[in-house]
Amino acid sequence: MPRPIRFNAFSMNAASHQSPGLWRHPRNTSVAFNRLDYWTDLARLLERGLFDALFIADVMGIYDVYQGGPEAALRGGVQVPVNDPLLLVPAMAGVTEHLGFGVTFSLTYEHPYPFARRMSTLDHLSNGRVGWNIVTGYLDSAARNLGLARQLGHDQRYDLADEYLQVLYKLWEKSWDDDAVLLDRESGRYIEPSRVHPIGHHGEHFQVPGMHLCQPSPQRTPVLFQAGASARGQAFAAEHAECVFISGPTPTVLRRYAEGVRQASAAAGRGPGEVLIYAQALLIVADGQEQAQARFAEYRSYVDLDAALALLSGWTGIDFAGLDPDALIEYVENDAGRAALAAFTAADPSRQWTVREAAEFIGLGGRGPVLIGSASEVADQLERWIDQTGVDGFNLTYAVQPDDLSNVVELLVPELQRRGRYPLTYAEGTLRHKLFGQGDRLPEQHAGRKVRI
Amino acid sequence: MPRPIRFNAFSMNAASHQSPGLWRHPRNTSVAFNRLDYWTDLARLLERGLFDALFIADVMGIYDVYQGGPEAALRGGVQVPVNDPLLLVPAMAGVTEHLGFGVTFSLTYEHPYPFARRMSTLDHLSNGRVGWNIVTGYLDSAARNLGLARQLGHDQRYDLADEYLQVLYKLWEKSWDDDAVLLDRESGRYIEPSRVHPIGHHGEHFQVPGMHLCQPSPQRTPVLFQAGASARGQAFAAEHAECVFISGPTPTVLRRYAEGVRQASAAAGRGPGEVLIYAQALLIVADGQEQAQARFAEYRSYVDLDAALALLSGWTGIDFAGLDPDALIEYVENDAGRAALAAFTAADPSRQWTVREAAEFIGLGGRGPVLIGSASEVADQLERWIDQTGVDGFNLTYAVQPDDLSNVVELLVPELQRRGRYPLTYAEGTLRHKLFGQGDRLPEQHAGRKVRI
Repeated sequence: MPRPIRFNAFSMNAASHQSPGLWRHPRNTSVAFNRLDYWTDLARLLERGLFDALFIADVMGIYDVYQGGPEAALRGGVQVPVNDPLLLVPAMAGVTEHLGFGVTFSLTYEHPYPFARRMSTLDHLSNGRVGWNIVTGYLDSAARNLGLARQLGHDQRYDLADEYLQVLYKLWEKSWDDDAVLLDRESGRYIEPSRVHPIGHHGEHFQVPGMHLCQPSPQRTPVLFQAGASARGQAFAAEHAECVFISGPTPTVLRRYAEGVRQASAAAGRGPGEVLIYAQALLIVADGQEQAQARFAEYRSYVDLDAALALLSGWTGIDFAGLDPDALIEYVENDAGRAALAAFTAADPSRQWTVREAAEFIGLGGRGPVLIGSASEVADQLERWIDQTGVDGFNLTYAVQPDDLSNVVELLVPELQRRGRYPLTYAEGTLRHKLFGQGDRLPEQHAGRKVRI
Repeated sequence: MPRPIRFNAFSMNAASHQSPGLWRHPRNTSVAFNRLDYWTDLARLLERGLFDALFIADVMGIYDVYQGGPEAALRGGVQVPVNDPLLLVPAMAGVTEHLGFGVTFSLTYEHPYPFARRMSTLDHLSNGRVGWNIVTGYLDSAARNLGLARQLGHDQRYDLADEYLQVLYKLWEKSWDDDAVLLDRESGRYIEPSRVHPIGHHGEHFQVPGMHLCQPSPQRTPVLFQAGASARGQAFAAEHAECVFISGPTPTVLRRYAEGVRQASAAAGRGPGEVLIYAQALLIVADGQEQAQARFAEYRSYVDLDAALALLSGWTGIDFAGLDPDALIEYVENDAGRAALAAFTAADPSRQWTVREAAEFIGLGGRGPVLIGSASEVADQLERWIDQTGVDGFNLTYAVQPDDLSNVVELLVPELQRRGRYPLTYAEGTLRHKLFGQGDRLPEQHAGRKVRI
């Protein structure tokens, strides 16, 4: 029996995430992102479609590399305004029972002690349905507003991240024994003090002598997401990540990424079933190919190229304003931009991209493919991509909310179910147990279980 | 016509807030605080009772002063485990329409730039129903885990707080013009860049050159709560706070506090209607006096004196373990403990307290009075306290959840309404407009409106 195809949804607490300009589409409701019901409606839709999780991206700065300032990003609403992603989870958890939530949080911006408490709180409130997308931040504009002269260097950020995770693992996994909470109304003992341990962390970046403030939550450590494509990011993911999100324009590119992830994970001593890989994609599903193509053409007419270049410039740290739009993009060794540029150039030697082509490409669906057609046609394509790349599923972005994801749920999911390539129901239990079927906790051999206090 | 009496509820994202030991009471559901429906049920109850807001306290450390360690606090579950308070708001906002939410957040523990975004996000999601209880932190155990050798000195904390608020006001009030967001689908302009301003803050503690990340929320600045009783805390409140929470055991003590708040506020140039004062109280309302007294006696039997002393020691920074339980408490000039001790001693010269009496007193309802009786009898007492103290309302804590607040809502509120001393319905609009009837924004003469960028 073929492997099931997994779906994850990809969004941001902003009106414009991966499709610059599409907020103008008359049916797009994304400018209502400030409202709670926008998110609770989305959560209900995704749960109806048996999605694994909603993955919420985040930045804490403005895209101000393009043309040397924030004007283009502001004009085009490029990931601005952008609200806090963590605060969406409790409301969505309240209207769903199974859907998971993967929240992006950059560990260079907050001390691990309060962050550990935030995530434990979310894991409690959602009954074990929280994931954390570990990022280290890439916008200098964010770093500056936090009092840093500039972003830390890429490798430095990952060194900091390693220690940050050590602190979190100690708090989440080791500070409270499973049987620490007695709730013994007779003896008056709420907690057995000898079963709660100060972590005594004294590291290069952090001093955290004390105990965790929360009792163990259903998963203890949230499901760990990672999306880094750099060498250091992949090494980090190999050790820590349980779900890895990759993006690239062709099966060849994705296959190479996916193989890299699996090899690195095996080299780090982890089992083959311990990492799930999702590839970013935009699916335009309609009743027939013709309608789908018409929708795609209509969407394209709303792409804002200036906004797309602001996005691309922010990702890469390179101001594309100075370049001839018809010049070919060359591969540039650059920390932040490596993933984006590699996807267009060196990683896919079969073609080259001009600046304009790249902007048009990321203008719809970000850095992944756009698959277009009837439910049956898109299902064919997904099966082919899965077979060619070896990924476990797709991280679905949208151009128009809620149409694109709602067509996936109403049209495509039933088609995949008929083919035996999609779950018919949610598994019970926490997000981790739903994903891996091995219980609520990190596997014994995971780095998070091996820390000592 | 007599002034209406306002109710606010006082809780914490923990099982045991102000009544140490009462978590053991067989009808107390507070150990379910890890669950979302515990909070959504509470929010619905309070909205049915037309409460102004739910005020959520917080600490980010353990009460480890008593007996020189955390054991007593852990054994008795004294404000531990304690989860993040902000994350409760979105879920409760989703099931209510009018109730406000006052969240405690200590400004010594997070940079103002991400915090500004968190609060703007909550204000958007709740449609303008968010308040912020400004605290500066008082537990050394919290400071240590955030990498500080110890808590900052009390006055230093308020100096830092002044600059912190300057940064927030600049972001919330000045960074985005009212008409910055165009959402013009025709021209493709989401935002008019010239109407979004970097705040250019370069201060002693913070460097925040950039712009706010969120568009203006309904209230922009959340309603500002403050509960400080020290001289420096009162000066701070006089300039900033819109709702002030006080606590004391007698009308005489409360009257003196309330007069102090109003004088200081007037001296800071603010109008008499710009500050609302709530006094902490525990109300035990039953069908008759006898039943209420029986409930009070039953509650008292659950008070955990050791846990109460752990709480008192944490508040004051003084280890009460070494003291004779029958010794009289003397007034001690101590930053953190001033409020607690003053309430028992110097501020009320009419009586003195032994250590044991003080522990028993805070064992039920924290630092405020316990008013006991039928709805009619408690209503009489509240009217008398309001008339004698000049406060605007009460900040109601509980010993047993949900019984105590549910009796207030079901029995006492209708009685006060019959007397014309309680609202019959919510006013429309944001929390600030509901409280002051003067629109959504801070008043023109408030410090938050006067910052310049």
